[in-house]
Amino acid sequence: MAQFFNKKEDIVQEAINGVVAASGGKLTRLDGYPFVRVVVRSDWDQSKVAIVSGGGSGHEPAHAGFVGSGLLTAAVCGDVFASPSVDAVLAGIQAVTGKAGCLLVVKNYTGDRLNFGLAAARAREMGLRVNMVIVQDDIALPDLAQPRGLVGTLFVHKIAGAVAEAGGDLEDVTNAAQRAAQGAISIGMSLSSCTVPGSDREDRIAEGDIEMGLGIHGESGAEQIAFKDAKKAVADAASKLEPHLTADNYCVLLNNLGGTTALEMSVLTQELQKSSIGDRITHIVGPAPLMTALDMHGVCISVYPVDETDLPLLQAEVAVSSWPDMQEIVPTALLPLPEHSNSVRILASSHDGHARIIRECCDALIDAEADLNALDSKSGDGDTGATVATAARALLDRLDKLPQADLIQLFPAIGHELTQTMGGSFGVILAIFFSAAGEACSSGRTPIAALQFGLQRIKEVGGANLGDRTMIDALEPALEVLEQGLEDAASLARKGAEDTAFMLKAKAGRAAYVNAAQLKGNTDPGAEAVARVFERLARSNAQVS
Amino acid sequence: MAQFFNKKEDIVQEAINGVVAASGGKLTRLDGYPFVRVVVRSDWDQSKVAIVSGGGSGHEPAHAGFVGSGLLTAAVCGDVFASPSVDAVLAGIQAVTGKAGCLLVVKNYTGDRLNFGLAAARAREMGLRVNMVIVQDDIALPDLAQPRGLVGTLFVHKIAGAVAEAGGDLEDVTNAAQRAAQGAISIGMSLSSCTVPGSDREDRIAEGDIEMGLGIHGESGAEQIAFKDAKKAVADAASKLEPHLTADNYCVLLNNLGGTTALEMSVLTQELQKSSIGDRITHIVGPAPLMTALDMHGVCISVYPVDETDLPLLQAEVAVSSWPDMQEIVPTALLPLPEHSNSVRILASSHDGHARIIRECCDALIDAEADLNALDSKSGDGDTGATVATAARALLDRLDKLPQADLIQLFPAIGHELTQTMGGSFGVILAIFFSAAGEACSSGRTPIAALQFGLQRIKEVGGANLGDRTMIDALEPALEVLEQGLEDAASLARKGAEDTAFMLKAKAGRAAYVNAAQLKGNTDPGAEAVARVFERLARSNAQVS
Repeated sequence: MAQFFNKKEDIVQEAINGVVAASGGKLTRLDGYPFVRVVVRSDWDQSKVAIVSGGGSGHEPAHAGFVGSGLLTAAVCGDVFASPSVDAVLAGIQAVTGKAGCLLVVKNYTGDRLNFGLAAARAREMGLRVNMVIVQDDIALPDLAQPRGLVGTLFVHKIAGAVAEAGGDLEDVTNAAQRAAQGAISIGMSLSSCTVPGSDREDRIAEGDIEMGLGIHGESGAEQIAFKDAKKAVADAASKLEPHLTADNYCVLLNNLGGTTALEMSVLTQELQKSSIGDRITHIVGPAPLMTALDMHGVCISVYPVDETDLPLLQAEVAVSSWPDMQEIVPTALLPLPEHSNSVRILASSHDGHARIIRECCDALIDAEADLNALDSKSGDGDTGATVATAARALLDRLDKLPQADLIQLFPAIGHELTQTMGGSFGVILAIFFSAAGEACSSGRTPIAALQFGLQRIKEVGGANLGDRTMIDALEPALEVLEQGLEDAASLARKGAEDTAFMLKAKAGRAAYVNAAQLKGNTDPGAEAVARVFERLARSNAQVS
Repeated sequence: MAQFFNKKEDIVQEAINGVVAASGGKLTRLDGYPFVRVVVRSDWDQSKVAIVSGGGSGHEPAHAGFVGSGLLTAAVCGDVFASPSVDAVLAGIQAVTGKAGCLLVVKNYTGDRLNFGLAAARAREMGLRVNMVIVQDDIALPDLAQPRGLVGTLFVHKIAGAVAEAGGDLEDVTNAAQRAAQGAISIGMSLSSCTVPGSDREDRIAEGDIEMGLGIHGESGAEQIAFKDAKKAVADAASKLEPHLTADNYCVLLNNLGGTTALEMSVLTQELQKSSIGDRITHIVGPAPLMTALDMHGVCISVYPVDETDLPLLQAEVAVSSWPDMQEIVPTALLPLPEHSNSVRILASSHDGHARIIRECCDALIDAEADLNALDSKSGDGDTGATVATAARALLDRLDKLPQADLIQLFPAIGHELTQTMGGSFGVILAIFFSAAGEACSSGRTPIAALQFGLQRIKEVGGANLGDRTMIDALEPALEVLEQGLEDAASLARKGAEDTAFMLKAKAGRAAYVNAAQLKGNTDPGAEAVARVFERLARSNAQVS
């Protein structure tokens, strides 16, 4: 499967280059490529206890992404899903360990235990003080003597990191890490396996199934069951965690295993809150991709008891952008929906001149129904005539309710009527047109200038200009000469409409998706509608100024 | 395709519930479900210019995830890939707009332009001051009159957000947003389309191809070309951006479209730095998922010129955890690789007693080669005998070079020799054993106590205990009675080894993966090796205390 890398064997070092480059100078690395891939805090002065973790790559941002004040001092990165060598771990330890000593945080996988274990032994031979804590937080298989290390490891990083940053000695830091390792429990679940670079994605998990109790290396989980929905999946995971819960308050770490969308992660967050353990979850870290399994479409849920000792450690600041600060789950009051309170109360009024113009316009559009439908069938779904005529009929029905005498109110009122009866974008554009015209009237413009302001606004909002084969091709020339009278306006609207028949690259509106041959010779129905309106008004001798 | 949601029509509101729940009280929402899905800053007091954005969902963390001080005031969320309604946008505007006014930031899609545009019109009718800036940063199709709004929108959020937070008035904020909208250019590329919830993943992009110039809704891009590797893909994207670059310094925003692993994102980061535009990239936001297209396996690269006006705005703090702070690209000096400086210099010395013990042990293991291979073939790959004998021969060869007379040095020296000649975990475990024994000697323990300390350490590191069918089953009883003499030790080692033939659930080591029937009646080869060694030492009357 194609992936964004170059040579498979260079992935980890190229990725580390990227991580260091994007760190703003906060990270550096040991000069030991290709075998020693160790990322280190640039500001490290060895005055405090160093915390070193790592393991196979493919779990990013773990672990290089968690190097920084308050979390890791260094991360030792192996190949994808493979433990780093003893020499690499030893180099990492040597690079950061001063008199205060060093704690290794190791996930329980044989390779990591042995390589970190021997590196620790070698470092001790050099006179360095090195402790090691092994994390085995997986509860997937209850009677397993050697549970895997999963995302609960991050609680160990956070708590040990906070104690170290606060100046705790090696014993303090080790004890805190041991406490965190004992307290954290985790369960993974996934809808897919993952794609190891250079290999095809393994299809172990059947479509429609979910695997419960799986690790972070694509290895098989405890069981595959039918997947129903997010609620059921979270309920199942919660039921695994629940028997292990002994405290009242827990922090949950909701980890994206890599291929789950942010949308899904947030749905899972709400389900977790509603689940059988939801009322014991008082704090949350994430949801976020923290310890991924490449692109696995799954999550790992880890919980850790929150007490007065650990709360400040979990809350302590970290200078690491991949780490989302822990948040307290607090009840939030919803904001009431604002009322649609028109600031101006609309009062019906009558005005023969305005009413007549509205009637003429509506009649013109009703009469044009069949012709507009026919034109629209060349470039769209053939309903422009019906849409416009329906709205026109509805507007005529409401004519008595309109504030006819007050243009400041009348223009937006027409817009409101149109959006209630006219589907699609045409109604929205006309509503914006009339709303802007009303706004312009209220700031003292003449009616014609107000209509021109409305035109300007719909050009901005709709993004269409002259020549784009829209109603603007008829409306703009007509409004430009409207001061000279309706005859001129009608004649320019007609010319503009007919010009659209030769505009073969529609740039806006629906016709933009239709090929030129279909458009040729056919007037745009919106422009035609505008022309019909002006022509009718011209014949009727209406007064528009 | 199975995904973590419940009912398709509830996804957006359930996800918003999750976002609000995980915000630590920083976010709230309007009480307008199911149609009005608006997320709002909890601490908003309307004293500054409000910034409202939004659009279709499926781009998380955009937009709800960017609501917070220094970015958005409110986000209006439509269905997946569908614009929110006019009423929803209007409710969002009304909820946050005070006397200072409101800026709408809208990506250039017809639905968003129209719905936000009409909502703005309606809000103005209510007397609210509302401006709107449309972002069209896509450069995929150079002669397109209506470029799409892509991830460059986030530069507009950031810059307008900083001006608003600093107390700028509506004109200041609008001008800043316009400047950002004009300056940001973006190009997307992807190896896959995306999975719209409730639908199958569209396979538009052929395996082995990459689509260049695509948007964030799964719609077709400008072209599909053969995918070679990360370097070529970034070079192609850079060559599209390059002709548009007019300034010396740019900030790049490297956006994960959702389905790209963090490992790949970091590889792309380094390639961008090495690309034809790399030397003009002085700052970076990400790599991170910021404006995703659900699970699309692609990226969108956006660049924005950095000058003295915008730099402080880009740097200004935001209280939003989904937003990665902009980092400066700085040259970093690599840390030199620490030397393997054993603090104690190893000097060869001779000691007949110790040398004789080493010889007897090695001979015993060499003699046992065939038997150990045979045992190992029952539970492993049949090479334990060869592995052990090879290491024993090599150790004999090096006997003269060892610091025979000084146990503090001799124990770890043996460990070092073994890791150089003995592959697999057995060598590592023995090295940890001897290293710990040396450590114990140096703190004054007797040789036997030192070996017991070594045993303790390998139990911790390896995670194996008595009864787990490993060499510990022979070694632990032998060392417990070693003070009483070699005969007792040998006899207990033999008994321990033979007991392993009836330990049918191996809990550690390779035999843990083998079924019970294969193990029954066969002694563990590691335990057998230990027994052979003690038996040989007992016969030889060596002195071990």
